[in-house]
Amino acid sequence: MSKGQVIALSGGVGGAKLALGLSRLGLGDDLLIVTNVGDDFEHLGLNICPDIDSVVYALAGLNDQVKGWGRADEGWRFMAALEELGGENWFNLGDRDLAMHVLRTQALARGESLTQVTRTITRQLGIAANVLPMTDDPVRTMVQTADGPLAFQHYFVRDQCAPVVSGFEFEGIAQARPQADFMAALKNPGLRAVIITPSNPFVSIEPILRLPGVRDALAAAPAPIIAVSPIVAGLAIKGPAAKMMTELGMPSTALAVAEHYEGLIDGFVLDETDADLADDVDSLDMRALLAQTVMLSLEDRDGLADYVIAAVDELAV
Amino acid sequence: MSKGQVIALSGGVGGAKLALGLSRLGLGDDLLIVTNVGDDFEHLGLNICPDIDSVVYALAGLNDQVKGWGRADEGWRFMAALEELGGENWFNLGDRDLAMHVLRTQALARGESLTQVTRTITRQLGIAANVLPMTDDPVRTMVQTADGPLAFQHYFVRDQCAPVVSGFEFEGIAQARPQADFMAALKNPGLRAVIITPSNPFVSIEPILRLPGVRDALAAAPAPIIAVSPIVAGLAIKGPAAKMMTELGMPSTALAVAEHYEGLIDGFVLDETDADLADDVDSLDMRALLAQTVMLSLEDRDGLADYVIAAVDELAV
Repeated sequence: MSKGQVIALSGGVGGAKLALGLSRLGLGDDLLIVTNVGDDFEHLGLNICPDIDSVVYALAGLNDQVKGWGRADEGWRFMAALEELGGENWFNLGDRDLAMHVLRTQALARGESLTQVTRTITRQLGIAANVLPMTDDPVRTMVQTADGPLAFQHYFVRDQCAPVVSGFEFEGIAQARPQADFMAALKNPGLRAVIITPSNPFVSIEPILRLPGVRDALAAAPAPIIAVSPIVAGLAIKGPAAKMMTELGMPSTALAVAEHYEGLIDGFVLDETDADLADDVDSLDMRALLAQTVMLSLEDRDGLADYVIAAVDELAV
Repeated sequence: MSKGQVIALSGGVGGAKLALGLSRLGLGDDLLIVTNVGDDFEHLGLNICPDIDSVVYALAGLNDQVKGWGRADEGWRFMAALEELGGENWFNLGDRDLAMHVLRTQALARGESLTQVTRTITRQLGIAANVLPMTDDPVRTMVQTADGPLAFQHYFVRDQCAPVVSGFEFEGIAQARPQADFMAALKNPGLRAVIITPSNPFVSIEPILRLPGVRDALAAAPAPIIAVSPIVAGLAIKGPAAKMMTELGMPSTALAVAEHYEGLIDGFVLDETDADLADDVDSLDMRALLAQTVMLSLEDRDGLADYVIAAVDELAV
């Protein structure tokens, strides 16, 4: 019998690693991976959803584990030809990856929702988990920087996260409706857990939390909420989280992430190397949990997923 | 000093070969290559213009000379991924070739005309000749077959020209305005020649001739009009022209092509192997001309272009 639905909130690469581990627990479609769309953008006329694609590629085993992003056995002939033809080439679109963007753009253009498109693709790829965009409405993360506001991918990819960050704005968030299955699961008495994956708290998780009604639904949810720290020993495993924290005037520590999530979560998973922060985390309104959070191998992903689901079930008792 | 404008009417591969030869005569932008758009179609949300692309790739030296279509050093990762994702995969889109379709689709979507898009791309690729779509308006060739009407690419690529052809319809032709530079050149007193390349008379050249005003302008044009036979020794060099002729109830001979163009052209270039047809062609209202028309090598393309331009200048005297 099902033990209930498990919701994982995810951004791209870091979240996708834990999402893969969770997907291997045999939860089937009781696992809802709610994915940030604030990083989505339109480029060369294509609808690109980097976080959804990172999750889908990871769950389908199509991701490049060496490079850490995109697809395995990727080719770059499209990019070479694009450059030759004078097209915008600051965002790398692999030859295989393009198929996803072209199919999605075509489906959205004929009126399908991002949820429908994503479901069609995940089923085609044999993915049992429900990969859900946080909303079918457009939300676009703008990064406020010393150089002025930047669309997220301009900040992240084109400008390589160099500009100093002072804040974020999520355009369209006030009008965006949270994805219906996500909201239904939050309100389902059989909800087992909400897991905040170790994605960037500010640009991957925050847009999901800011959707109208989501914070209230999380506060009322009948299941434990647990977050995994994306910061280990003061460093971000990947991406600009630590740099952003410093620029935003907070220490780049797992403790500061825990404080950021205070009032929302019941448990916070620290890496074992940050064991010295456990007491401070415990003094917040949450339980500190220690685990090996750096996911290099598939075993690491499985191990952290096992740990997190066991911790959640223990918190629920 | 310029000897005047030369207009070449072209379809895809066969026309592109002669267009390349003509482009190497040093005519610069006095060479107008007016290209069929009846084969154009929308596929996977992309605007695909096979004849324009064949001409552009040939003139830029990017075409695959072994395969005879598409780009050299092409890759097929996009198609493999498309199949994996369950996308429509009957039309092969190479990884490099995709850059053209994506850029064109984006430019058309933001309101540029096909003429503008094509000009931007040809300039970027260093092509001196003017490659002009026959019209900026949509014209779509429908092939009437024993299996019912088929969109051209469904007939040509998906069904491999297997259905028996009974006729053609050019949807949108009555409303389509011939490209303005093309019409201006036809009316220019300094026009030097109109060359009908050895492309398919029915599906590549006919749509151009059927554009409102084009036949009248050709009849009134102050320069010789010469066609090169696409049929040699009863066979089509490439494509379904000979098969179509048989199915349409005419002999698949160069003479039948000459008859098809009677009243329009002043000279008809037969392959030397068809020398026995020269008297019959001469008895039509046109001059029979003999040349080596099969273009295997670059020298062949140059040789035929040299021959045709000399023949045209002689006809003009």
